[in-house]
Amino acid sequence: MPAEPLTVISLPETAATVAAPRGAADLTEQRGVRRVSFRPKYGSDTVDVDVRYLWCGAPHAPTVIVQGGISADRDVCTGRERAAGWWQELVGHGAAIDLAACRVLSIDWLTPDDLGANVASVSSEDQAAALAALVDELGIGRVHAFVGSSYGAMTGLAFAAAYPEKLRSLVLIAGAHRPHPLATAQRSVQRGIVRLGLASGHVDEALGLARQLAMTTYRGSEEFSRRFTAGPELRDGRFHFPVEDYLEHAGRRFVERFDPERFLALSESIDLHDISPERVSTPTTLVGFPSDRLVPLADLCELQRRLAGTASLEVVDSPYGHDAFLKETVQLAPVLRHALNDCRGDR
Amino acid sequence: MPAEPLTVISLPETAATVAAPRGAADLTEQRGVRRVSFRPKYGSDTVDVDVRYLWCGAPHAPTVIVQGGISADRDVCTGRERAAGWWQELVGHGAAIDLAACRVLSIDWLTPDDLGANVASVSSEDQAAALAALVDELGIGRVHAFVGSSYGAMTGLAFAAAYPEKLRSLVLIAGAHRPHPLATAQRSVQRGIVRLGLASGHVDEALGLARQLAMTTYRGSEEFSRRFTAGPELRDGRFHFPVEDYLEHAGRRFVERFDPERFLALSESIDLHDISPERVSTPTTLVGFPSDRLVPLADLCELQRRLAGTASLEVVDSPYGHDAFLKETVQLAPVLRHALNDCRGDR
Repeated sequence: MPAEPLTVISLPETAATVAAPRGAADLTEQRGVRRVSFRPKYGSDTVDVDVRYLWCGAPHAPTVIVQGGISADRDVCTGRERAAGWWQELVGHGAAIDLAACRVLSIDWLTPDDLGANVASVSSEDQAAALAALVDELGIGRVHAFVGSSYGAMTGLAFAAAYPEKLRSLVLIAGAHRPHPLATAQRSVQRGIVRLGLASGHVDEALGLARQLAMTTYRGSEEFSRRFTAGPELRDGRFHFPVEDYLEHAGRRFVERFDPERFLALSESIDLHDISPERVSTPTTLVGFPSDRLVPLADLCELQRRLAGTASLEVVDSPYGHDAFLKETVQLAPVLRHALNDCRGDR
Repeated sequence: MPAEPLTVISLPETAATVAAPRGAADLTEQRGVRRVSFRPKYGSDTVDVDVRYLWCGAPHAPTVIVQGGISADRDVCTGRERAAGWWQELVGHGAAIDLAACRVLSIDWLTPDDLGANVASVSSEDQAAALAALVDELGIGRVHAFVGSSYGAMTGLAFAAAYPEKLRSLVLIAGAHRPHPLATAQRSVQRGIVRLGLASGHVDEALGLARQLAMTTYRGSEEFSRRFTAGPELRDGRFHFPVEDYLEHAGRRFVERFDPERFLALSESIDLHDISPERVSTPTTLVGFPSDRLVPLADLCELQRRLAGTASLEVVDSPYGHDAFLKETVQLAPVLRHALNDCRGDR
């Protein structure tokens, strides 16, 4: 059953307002900013940070934190001006993460800019600290579940390690306790390209190329093989390959919505991530994809083995590699429903 | 048994001279340049091309062509001024490719510069045409075997397709009838980086980054995982990851010995490669590595299935990915000995 879209109401940055979406009269939506305080991992002082969040779903229902990859934002299930959220198929009225039974909380990722002039890097622990402080600010008490994908999974693990009392259960999709060194290598090169762009004044081209490189790491190898079978085309004085045109298009789209400093900081944050699984006793559901070359299944197996609490590993077959967390909504839905199945009983 | 190094004698560019290496008195070495003529694939006219070659081994013994990757040169078994060749462990007196029993021929890869002002791209077929013309020039008649690795394997397949009468057998290591689209994607980004460097005047940094990206595609994923376990180091105002330091070092070394135009042309040449296996009836030994992400084993399986002649596939287990053709000399030696085992009987 497709998720029913929420009606979106633009709110002033610091307001928290209740909307009444059509056809789901008892759903609420808050889109706001709260100022919270914590000490960043790579800073020496406590800082005040403005956290931009979306909190929507059934009023008084248990809250489920949902966080995605570094290019995702708080608009999980609904964007401003009726744009679709990045996980629209899985979060909505009647969807796997059912807004009639729970309330989804998500934030825009913090960057070093948010942490003040003395902090050069942002950590997954900082994102977790901001979420934990926001949970307190909103009077949520204990979060029913943290569902994190990719960098969101890293942040979820950091949250569970630092704030076990604030969390009942954890769902980690395509993210682990540490980045794989090959993935770190690939991201290092991406950051090198962006730094070269900043140094040479060719920022857009460089950011586009970094995104192109990232795209080559997201999808499965066989998916590339199936999609790009045609030969090259001689155009503008050189050969262009179909996969190259696809990457260039994706690079240009990314440049329109992302800036280089944000990219550098969040990409680095993935590589700085390092949480001992032994510190985490929250019951955890891990979800991995065999075709994911960025977060190999072997790393999720190691994470499962080392977690201090109960941990199950769901292996979802998909040709989409790391992007399966965005693409395999039909296969992910029952996994999420099962992991959140006591959501109603938790009110 | 380690291969015995040849004594290297520097020769004038067009000369062909016989050397008498110490301890292998009957071995000869020619290092020269021959002018040959052929029509390039992406050109309309026949061009005269100077081909730089090394031809060394037992005089009057059958000739074995050996070609490596795009960054390899003709110095297969011995470089100028006693430097080691790039396949020194496998080519030498008493080695798997035994210079006491055969004579190895190898050329420096052609670039579009060699093909004249009207030709913008060089093909694996052009490299094969240059080798075929050189074989005629040197009076070799029929080549005992073509042993090609990576781009050298692509060239070997092109040679067998176009000049079957000049070749007895083919050994293709980590190279197939077409590039994998994911590998084309990765190389497209590398070329994009280099073009950005040329456009912005930051050529060395860009070529270094392109090489860094290439390095991430050469080694196996698990090898990265085993080698780079340490955490990052805060240096010069930012975090540096061990794998990043390794890549940057490799990038700088590459810049010292390669130029961007050559890189662009040979990288593109890999992606332009497209030979129908059905055209090739030469008996073929294929060698593949399961950890090779650049040339997946599945592509070698398809090649084996589609070749018109007899074809065997040797699967060599290795953590080194595509680089296994350089690293797994101990495992490759018996495969090469077997593939070339009638070398002596062929004189």
